[in-house]
Amino acid sequence: MDYGHGVRTVLVIGIGAGDPEHLTLQAVDALRRTDVVFVIDKGDVKDDLLALRTEILRRHRPDGGHRTVVAPEVDRNRGADVQHDDARYRDVVVDWQDRRAELYRTMLETELADGETGAFLVWGDPSLYDGTLRLLDAVLADAPDGDWRVESIAGISSVAALAAAHRLILNRVGRPVLITTGRRIADGMPGDVDDVVVMLDGRTAFATLPPQQRGELHIYWGAYLGTPDQLLLAGPLEKVCDEILRVRAAARERKGWIMDTYLLRRGAAER
Amino acid sequence: MDYGHGVRTVLVIGIGAGDPEHLTLQAVDALRRTDVVFVIDKGDVKDDLLALRTEILRRHRPDGGHRTVVAPEVDRNRGADVQHDDARYRDVVVDWQDRRAELYRTMLETELADGETGAFLVWGDPSLYDGTLRLLDAVLADAPDGDWRVESIAGISSVAALAAAHRLILNRVGRPVLITTGRRIADGMPGDVDDVVVMLDGRTAFATLPPQQRGELHIYWGAYLGTPDQLLLAGPLEKVCDEILRVRAAARERKGWIMDTYLLRRGAAER
Repeated sequence: MDYGHGVRTVLVIGIGAGDPEHLTLQAVDALRRTDVVFVIDKGDVKDDLLALRTEILRRHRPDGGHRTVVAPEVDRNRGADVQHDDARYRDVVVDWQDRRAELYRTMLETELADGETGAFLVWGDPSLYDGTLRLLDAVLADAPDGDWRVESIAGISSVAALAAAHRLILNRVGRPVLITTGRRIADGMPGDVDDVVVMLDGRTAFATLPPQQRGELHIYWGAYLGTPDQLLLAGPLEKVCDEILRVRAAARERKGWIMDTYLLRRGAAER
Repeated sequence: MDYGHGVRTVLVIGIGAGDPEHLTLQAVDALRRTDVVFVIDKGDVKDDLLALRTEILRRHRPDGGHRTVVAPEVDRNRGADVQHDDARYRDVVVDWQDRRAELYRTMLETELADGETGAFLVWGDPSLYDGTLRLLDAVLADAPDGDWRVESIAGISSVAALAAAHRLILNRVGRPVLITTGRRIADGMPGDVDDVVVMLDGRTAFATLPPQQRGELHIYWGAYLGTPDQLLLAGPLEKVCDEILRVRAAARERKGWIMDTYLLRRGAAER
């Protein structure tokens, strides 16, 4: 590949789970060489995302030598019919991603000049439940080799932030960890993994697990991780489940949105 | 808990997978308030660990206002009889951890004065396949409340570094990711997860998977991630397996040690 004068660089920068101090030195350096910051307007969580992004740019780009381009989020079918049908859910997400790709292609081509560097600032780590890299693959699939260059800058994921806040090691000795979604555990914990981190759970799947499973599980729950609003609760699931539901509902009501993550651990007494 | 004058603080700081630029601003701040850096002498990998640690301290503690305490690593039974027996393996690790706990209790009590802050600098993230937090739990289990305080500082794991280097999203849309060990996949990939990150694989388990599985897998492999020695290879497992074995063996021979991580992906064409 030719990284010569004309190449346009797109950075996908993981900015951590909510604490501006989660930023890595590599991410700070990446911000400093950014000409255009691309922002996806996410509606409800906008104000908080905006605040974190503004704070990060204020700290690390005080000269203001960059432009900001805001793209509206593309609507997605969130109907209940879709939520419980794996194949349908996937189709809806893929269709949504195609429409976003079209929007982003136009935006990137219009806003980024030859030789310039653009950046997407993403929550957490670009490699976990974030679609930006997938989107850029789709957007740039047909671009001539050497015209565009994509770089991924690792960040502190909400999984790592959850673990740090609870001072947890996610795996037990020599054993695996599964990172999955609320939809995936709605029907029960997998039988062969005892440590399961759940992300993207809008429907509190932990509260509707089969009763025989709930009795053997510990939960380590966190919301708004890394922010001043951070909430943490942990304990045997049977014991703290209702409290988490209560705290979660109240927080969501108060802030208008919630982003939470948790570890379910079977047989928590074992190392 | 009383965080008053006499409390001794132990920080477990994730320093990233090998690139000093992986350090977070939070980790830099933590280093700056550290009085004593505790180092575990890991033998073979010592020189590289030492180099990374020295470089990090040189950059962020140029005043040198800290002490360094080196502890010898405690020997561990690595006999072949143990490697293929889950229960035996666990017992050996747990016994080893108990002996380490004893050593660390003495070290912490001797070297850290009231009100001081000590730090363990660990590769990657303290929450993934690192035993330091577990060790501190064991060491401080019987300490009176309020005497000690442990803090975990999240870092860029080798999993995140691997993903960034290959510009990967680890999960497919709405699907899970399993993080596991080489020992665990030696008998084959799990049937219900299509994206598996393998760590701690000293025996190249990817090369001995059942033939019918190998044909459907892509591998994204990385060694010495984040360092100037970083090695990356990716492709259909059948096609690149031998090359990885060759490159890996040569690198190990040259450097005297290797630390590698990889993603195995079933059906790589799907999003």
